[in-house]
Amino acid sequence: MHGAHVRTRLAQIEVSAGRPRANTTTILAYIREAVADGIDLLVFPEMAVPGYLIGDRWEQQAFLRQCEACGEEIRQASQALTVVFGNVAIDWTKQNEDGRPRKYNALFIADHGRFAGPADSLYPFCIKALLPNYRQFDDSRHFHDLRKLAFEQGGDIDRFFTPVRTSCAVLGCVLCEDAWNLDYALSPLERLARHGDIELFINASASPFTFNKNHKRNRVFAAHARHLHRPLLYVNHTGIQDNGKTVFTFDGASCVYDALGNAVRCDPPFEARTLTLDIPRTPGTAFAPLAPPREDGIAELANALRYGLARFLSLRGIRRVVVGASGGIDSAVVAALLRLVLPPEDLLLANMPGRYNSQTTRGLAADLARNLGVPYVSIAIEDSVALTRAQIDGLALAIPGGRTTGTLRLSEFMLENVQARDRSSRILAALAAAFGGAFTCNANKAELTVGYSTLYGDLGGFLAPIADLWKGEVYALARYLNESAYGREVIPDGSLRIVPSAELSSAQDVDQGLGDPLIYPYHDRLFASWVEWWNRATPEEILGWYASGELETRLGLDKPVQAILPDAAAFIADLERWWNLYQGMGLAKRIQAPPVLALKRRAFGFDHRESQIGADYTDTYLALKATLIKSST
Amino acid sequence: MHGAHVRTRLAQIEVSAGRPRANTTTILAYIREAVADGIDLLVFPEMAVPGYLIGDRWEQQAFLRQCEACGEEIRQASQALTVVFGNVAIDWTKQNEDGRPRKYNALFIADHGRFAGPADSLYPFCIKALLPNYRQFDDSRHFHDLRKLAFEQGGDIDRFFTPVRTSCAVLGCVLCEDAWNLDYALSPLERLARHGDIELFINASASPFTFNKNHKRNRVFAAHARHLHRPLLYVNHTGIQDNGKTVFTFDGASCVYDALGNAVRCDPPFEARTLTLDIPRTPGTAFAPLAPPREDGIAELANALRYGLARFLSLRGIRRVVVGASGGIDSAVVAALLRLVLPPEDLLLANMPGRYNSQTTRGLAADLARNLGVPYVSIAIEDSVALTRAQIDGLALAIPGGRTTGTLRLSEFMLENVQARDRSSRILAALAAAFGGAFTCNANKAELTVGYSTLYGDLGGFLAPIADLWKGEVYALARYLNESAYGREVIPDGSLRIVPSAELSSAQDVDQGLGDPLIYPYHDRLFASWVEWWNRATPEEILGWYASGELETRLGLDKPVQAILPDAAAFIADLERWWNLYQGMGLAKRIQAPPVLALKRRAFGFDHRESQIGADYTDTYLALKATLIKSST
Repeated sequence: MHGAHVRTRLAQIEVSAGRPRANTTTILAYIREAVADGIDLLVFPEMAVPGYLIGDRWEQQAFLRQCEACGEEIRQASQALTVVFGNVAIDWTKQNEDGRPRKYNALFIADHGRFAGPADSLYPFCIKALLPNYRQFDDSRHFHDLRKLAFEQGGDIDRFFTPVRTSCAVLGCVLCEDAWNLDYALSPLERLARHGDIELFINASASPFTFNKNHKRNRVFAAHARHLHRPLLYVNHTGIQDNGKTVFTFDGASCVYDALGNAVRCDPPFEARTLTLDIPRTPGTAFAPLAPPREDGIAELANALRYGLARFLSLRGIRRVVVGASGGIDSAVVAALLRLVLPPEDLLLANMPGRYNSQTTRGLAADLARNLGVPYVSIAIEDSVALTRAQIDGLALAIPGGRTTGTLRLSEFMLENVQARDRSSRILAALAAAFGGAFTCNANKAELTVGYSTLYGDLGGFLAPIADLWKGEVYALARYLNESAYGREVIPDGSLRIVPSAELSSAQDVDQGLGDPLIYPYHDRLFASWVEWWNRATPEEILGWYASGELETRLGLDKPVQAILPDAAAFIADLERWWNLYQGMGLAKRIQAPPVLALKRRAFGFDHRESQIGADYTDTYLALKATLIKSST
Repeated sequence: MHGAHVRTRLAQIEVSAGRPRANTTTILAYIREAVADGIDLLVFPEMAVPGYLIGDRWEQQAFLRQCEACGEEIRQASQALTVVFGNVAIDWTKQNEDGRPRKYNALFIADHGRFAGPADSLYPFCIKALLPNYRQFDDSRHFHDLRKLAFEQGGDIDRFFTPVRTSCAVLGCVLCEDAWNLDYALSPLERLARHGDIELFINASASPFTFNKNHKRNRVFAAHARHLHRPLLYVNHTGIQDNGKTVFTFDGASCVYDALGNAVRCDPPFEARTLTLDIPRTPGTAFAPLAPPREDGIAELANALRYGLARFLSLRGIRRVVVGASGGIDSAVVAALLRLVLPPEDLLLANMPGRYNSQTTRGLAADLARNLGVPYVSIAIEDSVALTRAQIDGLALAIPGGRTTGTLRLSEFMLENVQARDRSSRILAALAAAFGGAFTCNANKAELTVGYSTLYGDLGGFLAPIADLWKGEVYALARYLNESAYGREVIPDGSLRIVPSAELSSAQDVDQGLGDPLIYPYHDRLFASWVEWWNRATPEEILGWYASGELETRLGLDKPVQAILPDAAAFIADLERWWNLYQGMGLAKRIQAPPVLALKRRAFGFDHRESQIGADYTDTYLALKATLIKSST
């Protein structure tokens, strides 16, 4: 009955988070097409019906019933083939540990009209065994753990790791994290492999794009395939999903690994498409030419940004965007990215000069608009700033019918923030409304880390597209956009050359080379060690490496740190200044910051969770600090 | 060696999140005092050393080492007694499932200088067995599950549920959720009870205040004690901790239940204090007079708010606060709450009239300041609004050196938001800076649910103190503050009587009884069913109850819904209007909203997690809608 090959199709669909009806319509269309094409085995990604990052929508029973009904429709549509798809599985007779209906992150195998499940399981579907609870993932919040299920059922876990015998092949099915088992005391693939008759392994995933992750996945999955001596299908989807504050792109990047670990890719990423191939039934056959693993360079970052921006705008119904263009690099990169996804008349650049803005940067902002061919306005903030000063500076305070309690003073420092808020909350917000669109937040990750921005000022906006990029990455992206995406100087060379500056006081005069207090790339690298390293660096480690002379190697600095911070006292003062801001005011601002487009491990928001507890220094740090300060004086 | 009683002390300390050194200093002081008082058994709460809600600070190894070192100091200080305390336990030789060092949420028993653990355990400490992964809790993100540990070790879980034999008594020790086992397939207390020689059970907790939770805890814990036929100690701490956006108060409310289930309370809540009592060693002895369970009425809400505000201000170093006082009820309640925790000269009320603000509300705002005895200023927004209009309305758009692309128009609706932003981002922010403080967000939960507020406008502020209260609860709180907290009319009666109104257009004229589009209490109750019910109501359930005539009972309405929304079409239009806002723009605004002081189950932010996926309607809802619309036309 089985032929020499299984005609297999990976369906790298775009999944809409929280839209089971829309996703099912997509899935049913792919099934009809597959039937017409004589496909034996059609594989959809994890959570293809409900979507994956949907917050606490899992707690809505009406939503769960809808997902179940959609799964039934897919089963009924599978009369002529085998359809593998991810969905939530609900056991209404049992409870999750939160007292709500029992839910599993499940893979269903609809085989010619019936659900086929693992041979000896309690359920006619495969259950995700390894639930990620790190980064943006909250699987244990919503889904029941397989080990807990096995415990509840008396301890036998192996009954859940059995082959699924379908009309076209004997399958070994797992979900996403199940194949990333290195840190777990359980390997689902290894347990499945104990059954010698599995012909084909499937990993259905809902895996967001993360810079440099595909490399690792290729290594891990190719090794699995070689070890299993069977083909392994990796099916992931496209689209964007979010946890509110943190927006993730899904690149798809689905892939088939043959039994020798060679890969056939579903290219290009970030596109809904299919990959069809005949998988030979003979165990261990090589069937694919070796494809070199993709390089995740700046092009991939640009690709993810472009895709994420386009999908975010489309899903939120935002057709037009205003960018506050300062003449600096950050806003220029945001504008250039947006111009890749919007027609010129739907993008508006606004320069908002105050008394400290140089002719240099005003000119650069206008040049950017000219280069991009988009409308440009210049709206001054001086009259409003003067009004605010007049209304508040010198204002007497009094209790009604009672005594005077004081007089208010608005300092020059306070006026820096007044300017920034005037630009965003007064001008850009009104401009965006009048333009029929929204305005962006152009903050980068270094600024967001330490709160070098004004709340309700430059930290306002509907989205912070480059807030997961360090300043050095913003420059690299600017060069990439000019050289590759546009093939001409769109971002003015001057914006790449001037010193980064907020231009909010005479101490930030770009024409005199004066600007922001952040020192690049040193602070980029320092902050990355706090935010992005898997095992976080803190002042204790940083100061230890400083003392032992390892700091340059650890952080990847190309010159001695003494070239930037001459002695221990200066180094420590700088370290504590930024650490205090990172843990203090920086976080207070992030809580009210716009959504961040996530690109890397540990984007701010839900990927990197924070409490307002302020900076604290360990005993070890304080002792080392005392030693260093003492020995240097 | 053992006397007839165990001289026991519950140490209801204030725990500082993420501050092991500070907490250990507190703990050591309590130990010294206990030794002086001849205490046998001193019990501290869960996570007394590190704090509990500390985000991803668990990923900092320097922090973990500090916690370990602090635990050692506590052990060394226990030479003369038995000290039970919560701390993170780290097994540096094993991994968590995220690849980081293995961490357990643990209870340590320092007994006369040595750590005593469960008799047959792998470790000399008790491990929290039931890890909550709901509401604001992310235990599985950070701590290794006991069932996973047992699986890893070959399956025997009972070795971890054994008595801890100390110098003063044989203890059965669990942590917080371990005693809330109703929805779990495992009861730690029951497993422990199989060992007949346990004399005393301890539940160390880190349990935030939640409206009406203490009732339930009293029922559940008293039943445990009766069932176990042994005393049960519940030790919780005070303080505030947060997950960034969502700020939780901890009320302590520690309690001892005797073997008959009678309780002795540690009163009052929200105060760091101790409860000392001699616990008879004879099994099953009653030793406490029955104390009636506390009523969680509006007084408890006010108490939690007052405590949370005071601690939040203190921890953030905010000494002075500006409240935008509109004359309405929300800002009046916020101001009256703040006056309970700040001296009068550190509170400033600002009324910011525009063209639509009535003399009525201006007068009420001034009356409020007079009643509270605090300074008051009135700063007009008209000149700034006119300037914004002049700068943007009619502005021509052109590509630099190129064609004109259009002309901007600023509509009356857009000017409503311009007014709101002018008040908060221009005036209040500058005023707060000049006053040397911060300004509040006065939004209530109904407004926050559907985004009835302006981003960077009335949604701005350092904290949203009443954003977990429905409008009806705000009124009840206002009456309570006048009648009980102040004992006089502080919040003007007029603010309780006028219609709620944003006063941003002529359609919102309070003197004509015109105001906001929200209908209270109907929308309060409707939104609560979406946000606060454990199994969320959605339009499908709501419309079903509407059709079956159950809606009034389900939502607790005191009159037929037809009195508000006359027919099915009107009902459905209203339902979809607010559901769309709740899932759409309301969420977009919440992402950038200030921290919320949590009071109830499902405060916005981290307690109620949301993705930007917009409103979706199930097939069942759409079918019922079609039927209802058809039958009504």
